[in-house]
Amino acid sequence: MNDAARFQPSELIEFATALFSAAGMPGERSAVVAELLVEADLMGHDTHGLNLAANYLGQLDKGTMKKTGDPVVVNDRGPCLTLNGEYLNGVWLTAYAIEEAVTRAREFGLGVVAVQQSHHIACLATFLPLATRHGMVIQLLSSDPAETGVTPHGGVEGCFTPNPIAVGYPTDGDPVLIDISASITTLGMSGRLRGAGEPMTGKWAVGPDGKATDDPGVLVADPPGALLPLGGLETGHKGFGLALMVEAMTSGLAGHGRADGPERHGASVFIQVLDPDAFGGRDRFVREASFLAERCRAARVAPGNPAVRLPGDGALARRAKAMRDGVSLYPGIMPALEPFAEGFGIAMPSPLA
Amino acid sequence: MNDAARFQPSELIEFATALFSAAGMPGERSAVVAELLVEADLMGHDTHGLNLAANYLGQLDKGTMKKTGDPVVVNDRGPCLTLNGEYLNGVWLTAYAIEEAVTRAREFGLGVVAVQQSHHIACLATFLPLATRHGMVIQLLSSDPAETGVTPHGGVEGCFTPNPIAVGYPTDGDPVLIDISASITTLGMSGRLRGAGEPMTGKWAVGPDGKATDDPGVLVADPPGALLPLGGLETGHKGFGLALMVEAMTSGLAGHGRADGPERHGASVFIQVLDPDAFGGRDRFVREASFLAERCRAARVAPGNPAVRLPGDGALARRAKAMRDGVSLYPGIMPALEPFAEGFGIAMPSPLA
Repeated sequence: MNDAARFQPSELIEFATALFSAAGMPGERSAVVAELLVEADLMGHDTHGLNLAANYLGQLDKGTMKKTGDPVVVNDRGPCLTLNGEYLNGVWLTAYAIEEAVTRAREFGLGVVAVQQSHHIACLATFLPLATRHGMVIQLLSSDPAETGVTPHGGVEGCFTPNPIAVGYPTDGDPVLIDISASITTLGMSGRLRGAGEPMTGKWAVGPDGKATDDPGVLVADPPGALLPLGGLETGHKGFGLALMVEAMTSGLAGHGRADGPERHGASVFIQVLDPDAFGGRDRFVREASFLAERCRAARVAPGNPAVRLPGDGALARRAKAMRDGVSLYPGIMPALEPFAEGFGIAMPSPLA
Repeated sequence: MNDAARFQPSELIEFATALFSAAGMPGERSAVVAELLVEADLMGHDTHGLNLAANYLGQLDKGTMKKTGDPVVVNDRGPCLTLNGEYLNGVWLTAYAIEEAVTRAREFGLGVVAVQQSHHIACLATFLPLATRHGMVIQLLSSDPAETGVTPHGGVEGCFTPNPIAVGYPTDGDPVLIDISASITTLGMSGRLRGAGEPMTGKWAVGPDGKATDDPGVLVADPPGALLPLGGLETGHKGFGLALMVEAMTSGLAGHGRADGPERHGASVFIQVLDPDAFGGRDRFVREASFLAERCRAARVAPGNPAVRLPGDGALARRAKAMRDGVSLYPGIMPALEPFAEGFGIAMPSPLA
């Protein structure tokens, strides 16, 4: 089959839903996971979309991702909820937790859900509209206490994960969708480049000698180096601070983390939803957010340079195009799903003409 | 007098309390402000300590900083409180708002206070122990809607402020005290270097031509450039995202910001205090936070390099030394306060022998 082929998004969702259902996940949950993974592909975050489906299917098969059952309530107190995700699918868990946080934000003005022992949660940006479409502000943080790869500032050894920070908020137009990590680049991107034998775009890792390098191979060398925190060798204390913030708000608050030495990959997740009406008011929020967005888009640029784009602008433009013209998947995604489809007797989706 | 002289911290607090009181601020508030400014000097954040006192005294005199009265409640709903600070002293206001947030966190598991139209809030790190000493986690964000200086990623024009992000949390030893900005450097530091005719330590600003530069003069050139967001020309979309997050959580939620075109310098402030006991439990929080802190301190470093330090380690070590040996003030601070002391008939503090 042709990897560069384009697909109808709805067909990809149907296909992935069928795969996850056949692998033993309840149908409704399978649909949520399929939709959010395809959403990542629509937005152009192609390391964190259907690219993950084969891995998820493999883990459902091995039992390292739990197929059925509910998360266990660790603590439930007014606006605050803590869940043990029991390594259920993290994409479904996160969508479920956001719904809980939105409900609590309606009642208390804000809601916070901390999740321990979730499975992997994929692309954070895709979750943000689940809150912004209700006019709410959302902060979504995640770390994996079974994984390292990013060094503290001043070190050359991975001690924690890239630790994404995602924030979404409404404006009078599209929402602003921020999805960054506390490291310069991610483990997924470094792995892909290492596999392709390509260097990073910048010197975003550090070798055991303390020198910055663009070689993604440094992560698996002996002795290994590590990814650098945001700010790099020069001002990486800032990325280090952000990484520690994420660790404290995720594993720290959820009550399960590196100190527990988890053997399974997974995620600690912090979700906060705030209702502007419980503060200065929704109208004032949207007015201010929209004013600043326009101010930034109109900022002077150097001669010949394109206009400033807001976080989410690019992803939403790619999404609109993909909804119209179909979505192209990164090479290798469909071939990796083919054996599962064959095993389950599910037809592969037909590429667009 | 000798600028490099060292002073007894308690004497500096007494001196600054007397100055603010004489300028018309209530005595108890003056003491809070004096203590927190000196705290910044103790921690070594010398642009944001007593360095600010002469400016504050001038503004009390001109009436651009309100001397007396209480903040006005804009909204009060369970764990959420929104205040109009009416340009009262921001250091006092922030300490007051943190106390409110801690009280609400005790009741609801978390408390959020948004403050609009605060005056300047000085050094964010100094406030964090007001929550961590109760075993709580604190997030403190601030922006100044009357000021710009930092460009969005891809632009060359200041559209927002450096937008500090401070986070404090307890461990089984010292708390972790994170205090960073979403820009590479701050307006205060650039101003000081510009005054001294010195370059920045790195190319942390951008000229109108789109090229990175270490010249702090670029901010006041014609046409001006701007400070770069964290990540610089290469990955500044991350710092830009953080800056927008801070703007939304501060001015957006508080309901007053750049859209209102404020003419007075001031601050929009977001304070969140979380009680780990409302989530996975305080013991588990401290265990995890302490484990990761030790893991980072023990990280491999390049040959000959010092061990990794956690955010706050340096500040708390400087603080301990200054409490023992006295605190040295940056040149110019005492001379700037001398005219006020003379005018109010207050004796200058005596330097240590």
